[in-house]
Amino acid sequence: MKKNETIRTDIAWSNEDRILVHALDLPTEIIGKFSLGDFAFLELTGRKPNEDESIVFNALAVTLVEHGLTPSVLSTRLTYLGAPESLQGAVAAGLLGLGNTFAGTMEGAARILQVHLNKAPDNIDLDAVALSIVREHQASKRIIPGIGHNLHKNGDPRTPVLFDLAAQHNLSGRYVDLMKRIEMAAEREFGKRLPINATGAIGAIGSELGLPWNIMRGIAVMARSIGLVAHLLEEAKNPMAKLIWDQIEEQATKHMREY
Amino acid sequence: MKKNETIRTDIAWSNEDRILVHALDLPTEIIGKFSLGDFAFLELTGRKPNEDESIVFNALAVTLVEHGLTPSVLSTRLTYLGAPESLQGAVAAGLLGLGNTFAGTMEGAARILQVHLNKAPDNIDLDAVALSIVREHQASKRIIPGIGHNLHKNGDPRTPVLFDLAAQHNLSGRYVDLMKRIEMAAEREFGKRLPINATGAIGAIGSELGLPWNIMRGIAVMARSIGLVAHLLEEAKNPMAKLIWDQIEEQATKHMREY
Amino acid sequence: MKKNETIRTDIAWSNEDRILVHALDLPTEIIGKFSLGDFAFLELTGRKPNEDESIVFNALAVTLVEHGLTPSVLSTRLTYLGAPESLQGAVAAGLLGLGNTFAGTMEGAARILQVHLNKAPDNIDLDAVALSIVREHQASKRIIPGIGHNLHKNGDPRTPVLFDLAAQHNLSGRYVDLMKRIEMAAEREFGKRLPINATGAIGAIGSELGLPWNIMRGIAVMARSIGLVAHLLEEAKNPMAKLIWDQIEEQATKHMREY
Amino acid sequence: MKKNETIRTDIAWSNEDRILVHALDLPTEIIGKFSLGDFAFLELTGRKPNEDESIVFNALAVTLVEHGLTPSVLSTRLTYLGAPESLQGAVAAGLLGLGNTFAGTMEGAARILQVHLNKAPDNIDLDAVALSIVREHQASKRIIPGIGHNLHKNGDPRTPVLFDLAAQHNLSGRYVDLMKRIEMAAEREFGKRLPINATGAIGAIGSELGLPWNIMRGIAVMARSIGLVAHLLEEAKNPMAKLIWDQIEEQATKHMREY
Repeated sequence: MKKNETIRTDIAWSNEDRILVHALDLPTEIIGKFSLGDFAFLELTGRKPNEDESIVFNALAVTLVEHGLTPSVLSTRLTYLGAPESLQGAVAAGLLGLGNTFAGTMEGAARILQVHLNKAPDNIDLDAVALSIVREHQASKRIIPGIGHNLHKNGDPRTPVLFDLAAQHNLSGRYVDLMKRIEMAAEREFGKRLPINATGAIGAIGSELGLPWNIMRGIAVMARSIGLVAHLLEEAKNPMAKLIWDQIEEQATKHMREY
Repeated sequence: MKKNETIRTDIAWSNEDRILVHALDLPTEIIGKFSLGDFAFLELTGRKPNEDESIVFNALAVTLVEHGLTPSVLSTRLTYLGAPESLQGAVAAGLLGLGNTFAGTMEGAARILQVHLNKAPDNIDLDAVALSIVREHQASKRIIPGIGHNLHKNGDPRTPVLFDLAAQHNLSGRYVDLMKRIEMAAEREFGKRLPINATGAIGAIGSELGLPWNIMRGIAVMARSIGLVAHLLEEAKNPMAKLIWDQIEEQATKHMREY
Repeated sequence: MKKNETIRTDIAWSNEDRILVHALDLPTEIIGKFSLGDFAFLELTGRKPNEDESIVFNALAVTLVEHGLTPSVLSTRLTYLGAPESLQGAVAAGLLGLGNTFAGTMEGAARILQVHLNKAPDNIDLDAVALSIVREHQASKRIIPGIGHNLHKNGDPRTPVLFDLAAQHNLSGRYVDLMKRIEMAAEREFGKRLPINATGAIGAIGSELGLPWNIMRGIAVMARSIGLVAHLLEEAKNPMAKLIWDQIEEQATKHMREY
Repeated sequence: MKKNETIRTDIAWSNEDRILVHALDLPTEIIGKFSLGDFAFLELTGRKPNEDESIVFNALAVTLVEHGLTPSVLSTRLTYLGAPESLQGAVAAGLLGLGNTFAGTMEGAARILQVHLNKAPDNIDLDAVALSIVREHQASKRIIPGIGHNLHKNGDPRTPVLFDLAAQHNLSGRYVDLMKRIEMAAEREFGKRLPINATGAIGAIGSELGLPWNIMRGIAVMARSIGLVAHLLEEAKNPMAKLIWDQIEEQATKHMREY
């Protein structure tokens, strides 16, 4: 770890009169002038997105906000049952599940693409790279991040929409190209449908936007926090957590008589 | 707690082929068509914002993303020092500090305004309401949420910008009016400057947007999660957590010899 | 908030050669000489428990470790499904549910007892105090913390065991007495069985031990963290989280066709 | 992931009349009969510890409860400043920092020892194993978990105490032996003092107790939760979080004029 001499941040400061964020005056240059998504792009990259980047970045983030009753949502709702005084705690409980299994595949896909392309020559043979990536995962029996989906077995409906959008906005370059070739190589090698899922598409397009792979799961975290708040609003009106608890406990208690 | 008969959500579902969110098809009707902020509004209210609502809601959310090295940011950075494998854990640690002291004032301000106005007649005397609110807090020695600021003693620079924006977009009605009259009454009663701070302005304008008070701190939670991810990106490149730890421990260790 | 002049703690310090905790040398005076429960008592009170206190305090903590598939446990297991890299995150997700609904009743019971007794004269009429507490809750339609139980309707089997143990070890004084009189008054006023539950017994006995009410839910937090780790060990060997998710999502998806 | 047919746990159940934990009746067979540490051992292993195991397991846990103003403690205190309504949230924020950097070394040490010894023949050459472990880490430039310490450069004072205790109680076998040989090999290869630290000793002795390496950081999580509650008790009486915030922000704000 590089050691700072002094404690400093280049993101934001405030004193009695001013609040500066990325060297812009928050009240006069940001509020009312940036949408939430564009401000998120500024926070992550230090610069305002151009129109193409804005549309595509917002689309990536929007894709990750909501996917129904995921384990994260269940965890958030169950936590709220026990601690209704702390909305922030219930959201935090849900975010804690955005780890290697789910959000991690987005990070993993971006990492593979960036490791292989960031310093690669212009004339690199993408098919050869794709094949070696697939074979390497095959040999070590690891799952290739970003392809295949538990539920959407015939293809994740979000993937083609995201790729089309990226292409329309000139954000479909080598990262997207390599991701697609990985899909093709994997389907040949494994002999089955292994379509690129939404996290694979987002990992690839996020790389086109210049986002480093190690922050990629951060996009899921920020987006999903919106969805978790929405589920809490519904839970407060029409709760399901107690019902979930009762169902699970009833099943488990059947085994009690064995003891 | 009202008991559901069945486990159901009206937010989102997915099956093998489709993902529906608020009855819209995510791939074809949402991705590329909603900005992140507008989608957050849809998640919270069940409907697409009109243009005025979009601008004002995004402005509220943007205001809450970033405020430099807050206790939440410090907690996120210190957590990352110990658990760099879990970006989601470091963000969660920061969000957990968005409780009664900070985000709570936004909720508190909105609650006061909504409790007094949601069922009030058209001709209610707002000055009388404001005065009774101030006196009630005075009598029970509680702080009035949404006015006064530790740092920005001469006025929070975000407040007038937010109120102007709301007025320009026809979202400045009775809630904002009452908030301003509370400020005036409080300054008279306490005999000092007690300007409306950003959380007071957001509580009032959020009420104009129809957001229930009990979800108000959720806007802070979703917005701040963006800022916390940005601080982690910086922490990974240029860490300060170890330096903070060293400084604090050095001060504390001075007292060790007393034992 | 009282402002410290300097950053100091009186709990522990370390330098290159020594680690002191509550002015004891950790290696030579604590390790191997304190059990985990006794050390917890030292941490909370600053002194070593005597034998009676040790047995009773350990009993209180032990009571709170495990209660099967609670919402906290479900949240921990669901979080682990998404983020198996972060055991600490899965435990944290479970602890976040130990709020007002569950652990809060222990705190609430202790608070009532301590508020009414800490400065009370020796000859206070406990039955009158109990009745006024019950009537006050009745009038404001609040639940009396520490009595009644969702599941154990005929009496929580932990309660008499805890009270007997406290009595055997001379830790059954006015707090326990008042708690029992509250139970009796409540049953008379409400005309139904409202037996003291485990959290009520712990709140009362914890008060006998001199623990301040505002730390009472901390005992639940420290104890339950043990149980959550045990459930993760089982989840890693024999997972149920995916099965829970599938069951819930299947029920919710039935409603999708309505859209 | 192996798929359960049904949702079941073998840890605990409750019905209207009974609470069973590891097939023992909680009220009559556990409360008052198990200390907190012994019950934790039961939870993790499914059996009551014998006297030697009890003393040594409690010592390991006790060692991990408290180490002064660590990053975890700072995070807990800073979270409490923002959300005093949620003690559980402040503890959770601190636990989230018990990841790869700190608690991970305990897990890492135990993993190395168990991977190399669990299926090894009786006559395995421990010095050869130790040397190959050291060289492997040297070659891949990874730190050897469990040896060396930032602060206690001349030796962690907890280590010899723990090893002596384990030896006195017949819990010093091949795992401890290999750990010590790794220290010797590492000091020879790197040509400097690299003493076994407390996490290395705990990883080794925990392995002697039969605890699987992947639960080792769970012992830190359960133990540290006790320490974090104690720090919150102190923070409530004599707060330092605001002072920390002020100090850090003051340092950071110096850089503001550069913008």
